[in-house]
Amino acid sequence: MKDKTGILTVVSGFSGAGKGTIIRRLLEMHPEYVMSVSVTTRDPRKDEVEGESYFFRTREYFEELIEKNLLMEYAEYCGCYYGTPLKFVQDNLAEGRDVLLEIETVGAGKIMQKYPEVPAIFLTPPSLAELENRLRSRKTETEEKIRERIAKACKEAPFIRDYRYIVVNETDKQTECAELIHNIIQVEKRRVGRNTDLVEALVSEAEKRSI
Amino acid sequence: MKDKTGILTVVSGFSGAGKGTIIRRLLEMHPEYVMSVSVTTRDPRKDEVEGESYFFRTREYFEELIEKNLLMEYAEYCGCYYGTPLKFVQDNLAEGRDVLLEIETVGAGKIMQKYPEVPAIFLTPPSLAELENRLRSRKTETEEKIRERIAKACKEAPFIRDYRYIVVNETDKQTECAELIHNIIQVEKRRVGRNTDLVEALVSEAEKRSI
Repeated sequence: MKDKTGILTVVSGFSGAGKGTIIRRLLEMHPEYVMSVSVTTRDPRKDEVEGESYFFRTREYFEELIEKNLLMEYAEYCGCYYGTPLKFVQDNLAEGRDVLLEIETVGAGKIMQKYPEVPAIFLTPPSLAELENRLRSRKTETEEKIRERIAKACKEAPFIRDYRYIVVNETDKQTECAELIHNIIQVEKRRVGRNTDLVEALVSEAEKRSI
Repeated sequence: MKDKTGILTVVSGFSGAGKGTIIRRLLEMHPEYVMSVSVTTRDPRKDEVEGESYFFRTREYFEELIEKNLLMEYAEYCGCYYGTPLKFVQDNLAEGRDVLLEIETVGAGKIMQKYPEVPAIFLTPPSLAELENRLRSRKTETEEKIRERIAKACKEAPFIRDYRYIVVNETDKQTECAELIHNIIQVEKRRVGRNTDLVEALVSEAEKRSI
């Protein structure tokens, strides 16, 4: 891996845990990060922008991406496909940009299995009780929707063990939380395995001097 | 591992790479870190303080530490023993303090082999040529000593591959370098494996809610 290549980082967490808010804060503080854009076969909603919200494609096009192994992961929800295009991520990484993949836990699980070297961060409130408090205090969700989200979170909890990092999204500490995610990414870039150009240059300089 | 337990971090690097300066800067900025104190059988020099510079002990006492497996690593140089006492490190970690172990590369190698979970940082100048420049510009070392240090660095270089992180000590960037070491330690504390209390509390909360 070239030293100047960007790094891909997975950010996941319970539905309703505030992933979106934290990532928006992170991008305000560090606009150099690039968000991975998903591809979908569903129709654009009003205000959704092609290439920003999603890449909107036909079912045929999507199935070709699957066949050609051009998706990092994909899933079907409510009759529509959603996936992570490999090329978008690869192109940005090759140009030295660090890419963030905000993804729900099933998709994150697929990425972790297929790309074990990718650091994966699980964002969580301090407890599920606190998750429920937060969902209720939003006052935008129906009781049924809240129960659905909590039930989903209960199924997701055991999979936290598969992640590399766990970050607690404390109430009123969004800036600290975003900065910690930034630090995780920057620290991952200092791993010896990501700096083989530098390490091998030092080793080769040592060999020449030892002759 | 309890969540409130401190973390042990190894900081190593070429002899003459400025480990001492960077760690002093780190401790100025973050005095909460505790430096591991080595135990030795050599006599104290003037200005050396028992329990700060070293724990000064007899040969008999040291050999008892070896026999009872109470040293994380040890070595003999010029007829004197030097080692890292396990109890000092363990006691500080148990009290929630983060411990730094500044150690030369042979000792670091022993620690990495025996405790593979301990994050190990290799501190390096951008190149060996730059290491030589820095040694020369100090004007405190004889030509022979400089040559010795460079020859030692050449032997050490291939072992960089065994470390978890490589941090470049750029000229005039000591504060940034110290802060990066601080960030590495703080990020390592967010590893899922170091937060099993939190993860298992979430899993257990999820199980109770799923009944």
